[in-house]
Amino acid sequence: MTAIKDTTPITDGYSMPSEFSPHDGTIMIYPTRPGSWGKDRSAALKAFGEIYLEILKRENLYILTDWEHYKEAEEFLTSLIEDYESREEASEPETTEPETDRLYILPIDSDDAWARDVGPTFLTKKGRDLRAVNWAFNAWGGAVDGLYASWNKDDAVAEAFCELYETDYYDAAPFVLEGGSIHCDGEGTVMVTESCLLSPGRNPDLTKEQIEEKLKTYLGAEKVLWLPRGIYNDETNEHVDNVCAFINPGEVVLAWTDNTEDPQYELSKADLEYLESVTDAGGRKLKIHKLPIPDYPVAVQQEDLDNYEFEEGEDTREAGERLAASYVNFYFINGAALVPQFGGPNADSDKRALEILKGLCPGRQIIGIDARAILLGGGNIHCITQQVPEI
Amino acid sequence: MTAIKDTTPITDGYSMPSEFSPHDGTIMIYPTRPGSWGKDRSAALKAFGEIYLEILKRENLYILTDWEHYKEAEEFLTSLIEDYESREEASEPETTEPETDRLYILPIDSDDAWARDVGPTFLTKKGRDLRAVNWAFNAWGGAVDGLYASWNKDDAVAEAFCELYETDYYDAAPFVLEGGSIHCDGEGTVMVTESCLLSPGRNPDLTKEQIEEKLKTYLGAEKVLWLPRGIYNDETNEHVDNVCAFINPGEVVLAWTDNTEDPQYELSKADLEYLESVTDAGGRKLKIHKLPIPDYPVAVQQEDLDNYEFEEGEDTREAGERLAASYVNFYFINGAALVPQFGGPNADSDKRALEILKGLCPGRQIIGIDARAILLGGGNIHCITQQVPEI
Repeated sequence: MTAIKDTTPITDGYSMPSEFSPHDGTIMIYPTRPGSWGKDRSAALKAFGEIYLEILKRENLYILTDWEHYKEAEEFLTSLIEDYESREEASEPETTEPETDRLYILPIDSDDAWARDVGPTFLTKKGRDLRAVNWAFNAWGGAVDGLYASWNKDDAVAEAFCELYETDYYDAAPFVLEGGSIHCDGEGTVMVTESCLLSPGRNPDLTKEQIEEKLKTYLGAEKVLWLPRGIYNDETNEHVDNVCAFINPGEVVLAWTDNTEDPQYELSKADLEYLESVTDAGGRKLKIHKLPIPDYPVAVQQEDLDNYEFEEGEDTREAGERLAASYVNFYFINGAALVPQFGGPNADSDKRALEILKGLCPGRQIIGIDARAILLGGGNIHCITQQVPEI
Repeated sequence: MTAIKDTTPITDGYSMPSEFSPHDGTIMIYPTRPGSWGKDRSAALKAFGEIYLEILKRENLYILTDWEHYKEAEEFLTSLIEDYESREEASEPETTEPETDRLYILPIDSDDAWARDVGPTFLTKKGRDLRAVNWAFNAWGGAVDGLYASWNKDDAVAEAFCELYETDYYDAAPFVLEGGSIHCDGEGTVMVTESCLLSPGRNPDLTKEQIEEKLKTYLGAEKVLWLPRGIYNDETNEHVDNVCAFINPGEVVLAWTDNTEDPQYELSKADLEYLESVTDAGGRKLKIHKLPIPDYPVAVQQEDLDNYEFEEGEDTREAGERLAASYVNFYFINGAALVPQFGGPNADSDKRALEILKGLCPGRQIIGIDARAILLGGGNIHCITQQVPEI
């Protein structure tokens, strides 16, 4: 396929649809990196597996894997579907079943499993023609504060997927951006955080105005909303997708805490004040719904630590370190939303998040996924998924 | 992966191993083009299916398919293996079974199913490091006498496979060559036909000497043997792989007929005389074994014709047209050779070919494949396969 370098999405009439628009499918990566998913990957695979199944019930699932794990991934996915089917035979049939027909396993290599950040960003023109953007990727900060030493394979994922999926793509390099650092309402508004987009490890030679121009150009947008901050201790320099998300045009959920002692309080408060002060591309004031973070901090335990195996140059963790747990890192799929759950002392917080999202998304199934193992890897459900729009 | 343009295989120490060296696997393409395999593809799929199974018993099988037929191909292959297993349960277990673990389905688009001609040509360095050559492809003659009007997708296959297989490749374009037009002995000798390599539709601006230099450069070879002709009415301008093949270094089989009235007689005779007159790269005289063509011409029937559906600009066929049937278009896989069989009045010729090859390849299983449906598509077993060396 063609890497488009002479024109841009905005001049060609392409823009990024919202995540809550219909999907053709979802890109995910089979998790193998020991520094993220552990030497024993069973907990991570259980969480990924639940997500795989929910997607396979509703849309295509494109699993990327290196050759070394291709057959393991195939076997894992096949067993998942077969086990699900045998369980279901014993109980009530559901209206939606995971379908093997929706599964595609593609030998595309990567450094880790963050499909949101390394996958293509898809654009459409009038909801019909599909193109994509290939951003430069530097592991969340390159030499300044990147999370691993080598990211060549991750940086090549978007292009490789576009080649296989037969999608022409705009090459935005050397502009550095991760998919998790943007949210679009599908009607001309982009939402980002200053802490991430203005971080010194990404595009230090560009001013805020130049970065805003890049976002408008490559996402086909008219207005950029700059939230000041994200989630406390979020190692991505506070991606927007962990703190605030569109649930409809003109309507967002914001990670929140009423506990003034919590380090998250000032961050969320700054975002709330900002969001209350602005209008979107359509000139609307935003409806802002608070989505409380877990009542109890989710932290790395010694047993988690023993399972990690870090490479040289890879960001490490410590026991007791607070993880950037937030329910905002949910992911919309066709007819449903997959919402992180953290369990343990946060069982009530988990339920509360599901109830709030049920109230806000009446037409969708709101499905909780035990996501602690994904959080331990450094992100959550939204970070390991990337939607491919239906055209 | 990198497209290498600054150096060449011969200077880097890479050369093409013989087909009878150990394989990692075989590339094949799932057949769908109606002008080759018919509106009703069942006969073609039966033949391809038998080959798929024999390969899956012995080495990896990389099936290329467009997205439209991805799930059909997957279902076809899965059923093939399951049906084989259920048949075998009832009878004696074989020592070699087709293994799902050896199957990889890759979404690489093509114009037709000639993996030999559009796939990469693999090279190794001291039997260890793997690289490939990406030749220019113009559908066997481009605007001069090419067989279809558009070949962009075919021309992109080798590069796409190398990207997925993670193999650096030498980009030989604009030099036009198909994999079926060369045979290598793995010890410095390349065998080609003048009728093909000097045809006006391929590299009209190059002299024979310049073409020979290209072959040596990109195949890491020292000597090129120029057979004058190939098989009568072979629409590839008489590819060598239909008329003569190495079965060992210094040893070839040559398609033959003793019938002086047969139009093949003069062609094979010219080749025999040439082969008797030359030495290979090692300075050896060649051992030449005659492999008689079918006793009765294999021709297109009216019912075959009714099944084809030709595109605009595509080479068409006529009832009664003699097809380029030859047993030399066999294919070596690990531990075996897959040999075309034509059936009908040629049952005895078929058997004779198997017996001759059994005598010449004592260590291998010699397996006949009913290949009339492949021949109707315009080639044979060797044309729809491309080996990937084991390293």
